[in-house]
Amino acid sequence: MHDILHCIGIQATPQKVYAALSEQKGLAGWWTKDTKAEAKVGALLQFRFGNHGFNDMKVVRLVRGRQVHWHCVDGAKEWIGTRLTFDLKREGDRTIVVFTQHGWKKQTDLLRYCNTKWATYLLSLKSLVEKGKGLPYPKDIDID
Amino acid sequence: MHDILHCIGIQATPQKVYAALSEQKGLAGWWTKDTKAEAKVGALLQFRFGNHGFNDMKVVRLVRGRQVHWHCVDGAKEWIGTRLTFDLKREGDRTIVVFTQHGWKKQTDLLRYCNTKWATYLLSLKSLVEKGKGLPYPKDIDID
Repeated sequence: MHDILHCIGIQATPQKVYAALSEQKGLAGWWTKDTKAEAKVGALLQFRFGNHGFNDMKVVRLVRGRQVHWHCVDGAKEWIGTRLTFDLKREGDRTIVVFTQHGWKKQTDLLRYCNTKWATYLLSLKSLVEKGKGLPYPKDIDID
Repeated sequence: MHDILHCIGIQATPQKVYAALSEQKGLAGWWTKDTKAEAKVGALLQFRFGNHGFNDMKVVRLVRGRQVHWHCVDGAKEWIGTRLTFDLKREGDRTIVVFTQHGWKKQTDLLRYCNTKWATYLLSLKSLVEKGKGLPYPKDIDID
């Protein structure tokens, strides 16, 4: 099993970062504009990336200002079954987002691509929360 | 052992990307301005990041337009002994950079931080090669 591991510091309270990670408006503001989401355990979140694919996530756990935990239930074959956690830690006037996509079965080209791509989406999250403007798909940071 | 795995596509020839990965001017244009480098197997490359630390790399292998391979011989404790490879693959009018930092002993906070940070430096490399302007330290993309 392999994990994608990132972290990013955001100049904001954990509450503000948590909102961007759990609510429809927040998620659509940094990951993909075509998002259907609800901040509720058990909810099915739908993320669409035009003809680049999609992901459906089941919300496993929500701890306000602390953690968002999803289970990928549909989408790219290699993503199904992975678990995604965003853990928030306050450090001074910043919030550290500790992000993990757990449980990739193999070290594939897609894992490599998604690892780089996740960094760009976390930069987008940081920009959304700090400056009010993220770079969600289809205006995401190009790594192609 | 753990590896940091990234990839990025650059609209340029492998030769142009290779120059940015092997020559003093190229490396100083995307990683850190304070770089001493020589495109020669056996050379010691010195990368300095002010009071954020440093890395010394020994050039292990250079294959023009194909591969750059370094061995980290000094710097952050967790980096020493790791090997860094940049493999270049032509795909149409693009070059794909397949980057790996091999042989982290543990999955630490520093590995997580460096994983995210490497993505930003590869974006800087892409920008340097495609647009003539990278974002090397100390003007690197902020993830703090």
